[in-house]
Amino acid sequence: MKKLFASNLYVALLHYPVINKNGDTIASAVTNLDLHDISRVAKTYGVKAFYVVTPLIDQQALVNRIVSHWVSGVGSRYNPKRRAALELIRIKTALDGVIEHIKAKEKVTPVTVVTGADQRLMNDRQKIGFYQFRAMLKKEDVYLLIFGTGWGLSERILARADYLLEPVTGCTGYNHLSVRSAASIILDRLMGR
Amino acid sequence: MKKLFASNLYVALLHYPVINKNGDTIASAVTNLDLHDISRVAKTYGVKAFYVVTPLIDQQALVNRIVSHWVSGVGSRYNPKRRAALELIRIKTALDGVIEHIKAKEKVTPVTVVTGADQRLMNDRQKIGFYQFRAMLKKEDVYLLIFGTGWGLSERILARADYLLEPVTGCTGYNHLSVRSAASIILDRLMGR
Repeated sequence: MKKLFASNLYVALLHYPVINKNGDTIASAVTNLDLHDISRVAKTYGVKAFYVVTPLIDQQALVNRIVSHWVSGVGSRYNPKRRAALELIRIKTALDGVIEHIKAKEKVTPVTVVTGADQRLMNDRQKIGFYQFRAMLKKEDVYLLIFGTGWGLSERILARADYLLEPVTGCTGYNHLSVRSAASIILDRLMGR
Repeated sequence: MKKLFASNLYVALLHYPVINKNGDTIASAVTNLDLHDISRVAKTYGVKAFYVVTPLIDQQALVNRIVSHWVSGVGSRYNPKRRAALELIRIKTALDGVIEHIKAKEKVTPVTVVTGADQRLMNDRQKIGFYQFRAMLKKEDVYLLIFGTGWGLSERILARADYLLEPVTGCTGYNHLSVRSAASIILDRLMGR
């Protein structure tokens, strides 16, 4: 049977380790609309799960409260479409936990692909373009696409990834999209018709 | 000279008249991240101006306060990239004011293109697809692409538009993106490389 959509793609949004404006490694705060927008786009394009990663206990509790409201609370009856999206969310403390979770489900280690707007990081053997990744997604492997909050993923997350996805560029040289916009455009480019 | 990017496209985000979950016409509240995300994506893809439309005086004041912070206030020094995006924002009371404003600048009435996820509205002579609109943008006309907040643009805005753009569909049948995600994907499809 023809595969209708990528059922072998997972997405993670990291709040640590990411960098701030000055290049320092920080843990960023969770943004409510990141959860909604990225889970809705993940649901639209057949992503298997959306991992929200933060080591901060209070931030994990916040994510849990938001997800519970829409998945089993009042929000689930008010807007079942939102429930269908937010139930893709899994909360993890660190990227290792995400990879372990996928491995336990899929019996295979996911191929990791990191994203970022900084083109300097892209002169590298790990670099892949959208067309190449789109073709790879048609194979039997399992993939984990990783987004960073703040000013982007820290060097040490980039260094350990299997691949670096080329940045989204528009047509003007301006290159400062929100992570919500970047995730939307990237999933459309990878899995849109 | 080869045109590097569409310099003939304007974007508007309407907060009235839009519909709510029950199909009633309402004026929706302004969402801070709509302003940031859509202005950043507009800047990325060479949109000429981003009109935020609301008849509510307090909401206009809110938009004005946010834009001022980033364009001329503390935010403009903290993050000049954000200033470059938010200075695309123009506040208008109604769609007519947007069209008049463009007409005064361009000496031509813009061709209006509305967006929406509801496919039932799309069996119509006004319907255009992404490829067709992309080709139209290479011509000399001036275009205004209109997004709705809430549950979408009201019937009366759809009825008076020149064209209805086909909805963004993913690969799953789920069709409930945020307006921020939809605007990002649509501008990438129209103007991305």
